[in-house]
Amino acid sequence: MIPLTDLTLSEYLEARGRLVDDALDTYLPPASHEPRIIHEAMRYSVFAGGKRLRPLLVLAAAEACDGEPAHALSVACAVELIHTYSLIHDDLPAMDNSDTRRGRPTCHIAFGEAIAVLTGDALHALAFALIADAAAAVGAERALAVSREIAGAIGTGGMVGGQVLDLLGEGRPMRGNASPVNSRFELVREIHLRKTGKLIRASVLAGAMLAGADERAIAALGRYGERVGLAFQIVDDILDVVGVEAEVGKRLGGDAARFKLTYPGAFGVERSRELAADLTTDAVAAISSLGPRGRILEELADDLRRRER
Amino acid sequence: MIPLTDLTLSEYLEARGRLVDDALDTYLPPASHEPRIIHEAMRYSVFAGGKRLRPLLVLAAAEACDGEPAHALSVACAVELIHTYSLIHDDLPAMDNSDTRRGRPTCHIAFGEAIAVLTGDALHALAFALIADAAAAVGAERALAVSREIAGAIGTGGMVGGQVLDLLGEGRPMRGNASPVNSRFELVREIHLRKTGKLIRASVLAGAMLAGADERAIAALGRYGERVGLAFQIVDDILDVVGVEAEVGKRLGGDAARFKLTYPGAFGVERSRELAADLTTDAVAAISSLGPRGRILEELADDLRRRER
Repeated sequence: MIPLTDLTLSEYLEARGRLVDDALDTYLPPASHEPRIIHEAMRYSVFAGGKRLRPLLVLAAAEACDGEPAHALSVACAVELIHTYSLIHDDLPAMDNSDTRRGRPTCHIAFGEAIAVLTGDALHALAFALIADAAAAVGAERALAVSREIAGAIGTGGMVGGQVLDLLGEGRPMRGNASPVNSRFELVREIHLRKTGKLIRASVLAGAMLAGADERAIAALGRYGERVGLAFQIVDDILDVVGVEAEVGKRLGGDAARFKLTYPGAFGVERSRELAADLTTDAVAAISSLGPRGRILEELADDLRRRER
Repeated sequence: MIPLTDLTLSEYLEARGRLVDDALDTYLPPASHEPRIIHEAMRYSVFAGGKRLRPLLVLAAAEACDGEPAHALSVACAVELIHTYSLIHDDLPAMDNSDTRRGRPTCHIAFGEAIAVLTGDALHALAFALIADAAAAVGAERALAVSREIAGAIGTGGMVGGQVLDLLGEGRPMRGNASPVNSRFELVREIHLRKTGKLIRASVLAGAMLAGADERAIAALGRYGERVGLAFQIVDDILDVVGVEAEVGKRLGGDAARFKLTYPGAFGVERSRELAADLTTDAVAAISSLGPRGRILEELADDLRRRER
């Protein structure tokens, strides 16, 4: 494998993205295995043109801590499976009711709602099997620490909790309580931190843990991950408002149409751009102690802020 | 704690059942924590009068291998959370469309469909956090082996795959392929082995692994678990046909009304009873090498076969 230091960011993302895609193809059961429909649905949803941001962060964080990318590959795939499961469930009629994603029919449109629920559940379970697989390369201690970190990031204190707050924020009729956060500004931040930020942060932390990084490096990468995760979601919100339909590949203004709480909605587009830039600066500053080993992570943070899709 | 050998089966089940319920209450986030609605829904579904069969099997298998029940408690709770998540998702309108379970409104009736999907997802994630917690008592190696075993038991080769076969077996209109198994008898066995059997087997294996049992004992308990799991589901099918509504607490004949493949449907009630008895005999024989330490597991297998609800 070409060493990290000799690659530009785009060469790095392409090379490691290929690694991830090849590994996902290996780890997912073949579509010919019974019951075929669920294996087809898992592959349909995983190979849908995603950016592979979370697995790339696992690998880049591992390499920034002098870890072998090959040893982090099963966990990199696991976080992508978890991300995919969350998109499938979020798209369901009872949730965001989205018919298309990245220009293609969503899982429940293509395979039916029952299979879509089960496809999410199957990807969720397979992710934890893949995290356990990492033990062969890095030992049970590190693999288990990663399993704990990721499980914590996707529960009610993280991804699922963020989705609940998002639903409550929409004023969707539901039994019981209203949103727990008083200020609209606080709420949108809390939703984004949990719904997107925690899994992105856990992906960065997982890479560092698998590489056996020391506590100081892990803390620095945790700060980096949290800020990058929040900036990523803010840019997503901005693109939802100002993007071009063909580029984003989903119905634009969807968030506004559903009265979702977003950064542009709460702060305006210009202020949201500034906030994303500030978070990115903070993220880069957080990992200055890594020195040149942190270059890919630094450039990636900046690249994510500037992206147009 | 009173030693295993001094307890009758019903004393054992009551004492350990209390341990499990107390631990579940500790592990589940308080209903007062935000976002409250999901924590309420998790507790509503977990404390719904279940038999706690799977956690009791974890504890009984651990104790049969001279393990400390306290060291197996977080994993015992984890398998109950996974079982609960699967019931919540199975009850959804797109799946079995059940309005009541154990005489109470199902999660999606009580909290809405979006929260029900997310409640299942949250329980699923919390389960893997609890499995990781076991490392504090038994070390990372054993906890990780349990995590791998359980993740494998609930994916498309296990619980989720069984649910997919079940849906296909109902002839529900879905895109794509028909059922992969030709014979109706083979299919009903395959559905039950995957949908119920694999998690019950994994529960027994988890207890043995946590206790540090040797390979021979683990293999014996695996055979026991598979047979008990299949017998349990056959008895469930029989009760669905012949049970008394008030006792079973759900609309009876529901399986027949939905053309589900069941043992009584495929083999008749009498032959199904014989099959359950044969499987129970095999299960008990499989653990004869455990000697007196296996008494609770032996009696439990027999008790499950004779149960009337």
